[in-house]
Amino acid sequence: MISGLEMMEYAPSMDKIINHFERQGGIMTPNNRRQARVFKGAMVLLNDVGMAPGMIVEYRDNIWVFMPGVPKEMKAMFSGSVIPYLRNKFGDKEIIRSLVLRFNGIGESRLEHELIDLIQAQENPTIAPLAQDSGVVIRLTAKEKTAEKADELLEQAKQRILKRVGSYYYGDDETTLQERVVLLLQRKNYHIAAAESLTGGSFGKALTSVSGVSSVFRGSVVCYDPIVKKEVLEVSDMTIRQYGTVSKECATEMAENAKRLMHADIGVSFTGVAGPENLEGKPAGKVFIGISTAENTIEVEACQFSGNRSEIRKQSVIKALQLLLKYLND
Amino acid sequence: MISGLEMMEYAPSMDKIINHFERQGGIMTPNNRRQARVFKGAMVLLNDVGMAPGMIVEYRDNIWVFMPGVPKEMKAMFSGSVIPYLRNKFGDKEIIRSLVLRFNGIGESRLEHELIDLIQAQENPTIAPLAQDSGVVIRLTAKEKTAEKADELLEQAKQRILKRVGSYYYGDDETTLQERVVLLLQRKNYHIAAAESLTGGSFGKALTSVSGVSSVFRGSVVCYDPIVKKEVLEVSDMTIRQYGTVSKECATEMAENAKRLMHADIGVSFTGVAGPENLEGKPAGKVFIGISTAENTIEVEACQFSGNRSEIRKQSVIKALQLLLKYLND
Repeated sequence: MISGLEMMEYAPSMDKIINHFERQGGIMTPNNRRQARVFKGAMVLLNDVGMAPGMIVEYRDNIWVFMPGVPKEMKAMFSGSVIPYLRNKFGDKEIIRSLVLRFNGIGESRLEHELIDLIQAQENPTIAPLAQDSGVVIRLTAKEKTAEKADELLEQAKQRILKRVGSYYYGDDETTLQERVVLLLQRKNYHIAAAESLTGGSFGKALTSVSGVSSVFRGSVVCYDPIVKKEVLEVSDMTIRQYGTVSKECATEMAENAKRLMHADIGVSFTGVAGPENLEGKPAGKVFIGISTAENTIEVEACQFSGNRSEIRKQSVIKALQLLLKYLND
Repeated sequence: MISGLEMMEYAPSMDKIINHFERQGGIMTPNNRRQARVFKGAMVLLNDVGMAPGMIVEYRDNIWVFMPGVPKEMKAMFSGSVIPYLRNKFGDKEIIRSLVLRFNGIGESRLEHELIDLIQAQENPTIAPLAQDSGVVIRLTAKEKTAEKADELLEQAKQRILKRVGSYYYGDDETTLQERVVLLLQRKNYHIAAAESLTGGSFGKALTSVSGVSSVFRGSVVCYDPIVKKEVLEVSDMTIRQYGTVSKECATEMAENAKRLMHADIGVSFTGVAGPENLEGKPAGKVFIGISTAENTIEVEACQFSGNRSEIRKQSVIKALQLLLKYLND
């Protein structure tokens, strides 16, 4: 691979791993053995999440870094072994720190318009608005000699930004809409339940991606087939016959019944057309989202989303989370 | 941006779009207008899924292609406008066609081992095995003068490969496990229903990502809280008290009740520990997957997955789809 460098069966440091693997009943096929080969003299990077090791070779003024191709394995090795190696090798001449501010209920252009003078004047940290599926974010990036100093600059810029558009802000960095919703539910000690037709479980999946959600999430009835709407979720036959399943009335009953049947304080419902075909004469993208609140009011949002099946379902879940965030913040 | 090139307010071809946007009640903020600017003489690429147009500028022996940064918009513009432009500009001197073969129930090393002589001897098409989350795939890539000739080579290689490992093969290209499961359910005219605890709706979401699934999927009870397991899914209190919710017994009842309550032929259940914390004394990654079959037999697979919360949930869904595929293929 690198001319002048020799491959060897495997590095001495691999012995222990291969032995361990074989003791567990693993079979080192010729191909497994081939994957375990490294360059003579290479620094071997152990792979915590897969089989092929990585390596770093310093050779003729070049540094070669080899990593496995499976994204999960590569990422773990890159942050666990390669970055520490590079930091150690070259020292940290300059620290780069960044902070992402997340907003709900405001568009990218509008946000940029409100902050345009700051964005143009500001060089450290830089201020970059970005549109993401779940809303708009601003990425602040600061360069400084120390992390503390960089964080101080980030915090100052954040405060300046929030003074103008703080009412749309919901969290920093990787905070998701669902994390914010779960946090507010926990604070108010509310339980939530859902009834999902076109989303097929996407809302439940989104909420349960949050660790610790069991204190606030009861469950969801995925009522894809009308028979499940009627028999499990107890939506009245008359509602379905009179208004159809894709209707404000059906969304209302779904939300209220989900709340009642699962002993929750808030019920959320999704019914609509994921597409690509029309349903009950309604076009793809037509979605009703119902929220039965802790105060027993009902709110149904009639939406018309665009995009393919997956995008329509995704937008439905994001919209419900945005509505919940607004309700819980009020 | 490019020295010597002039920016203009917007291209004549943008007029129609901006007028349309404003007639719909859209407001062209100064920032929207800025996003609409293009180079003088540029070929403007319309953006079907967002606001900022793209452009192609041919200038001093270079071709500059500008596209919006939002991934969805960039991808649509790249395949819709940029590739056709490049094809037209440079002509197709050589056609590259590829085909992905998907396998279930065999590891990457094993597959490579079975095909190693073909892989090493074969140059057109090339044969590359890859490990993916949902199993192992082989990517065949052929280069030829015409698409027909390339496809012929791909088909020949495919047949040679399937002669050896065809029993693990389930589909080509972007065929997903869930698509294959849905297809087999449709062929056998079986309805399926699920009961999901730790997966929180992920299984329902995966199945309902397949268009046309309504002919076979009834629904899923996401019974995250024990109260939903008991009251909606009718799992007996005794089972939960005696064995806990993370148990073979609970998985059995969940699968059987899901099938019965939702009038399905097959019931699938998921109960386990998504982590990061232990639950009922069981470690994160401990998952029971139950399948109540159309023949009224019950199969419960006790799994021990590793990884974070999201990986454990994902592996649970893949495992269930693999078990269903095996059952439906038998």
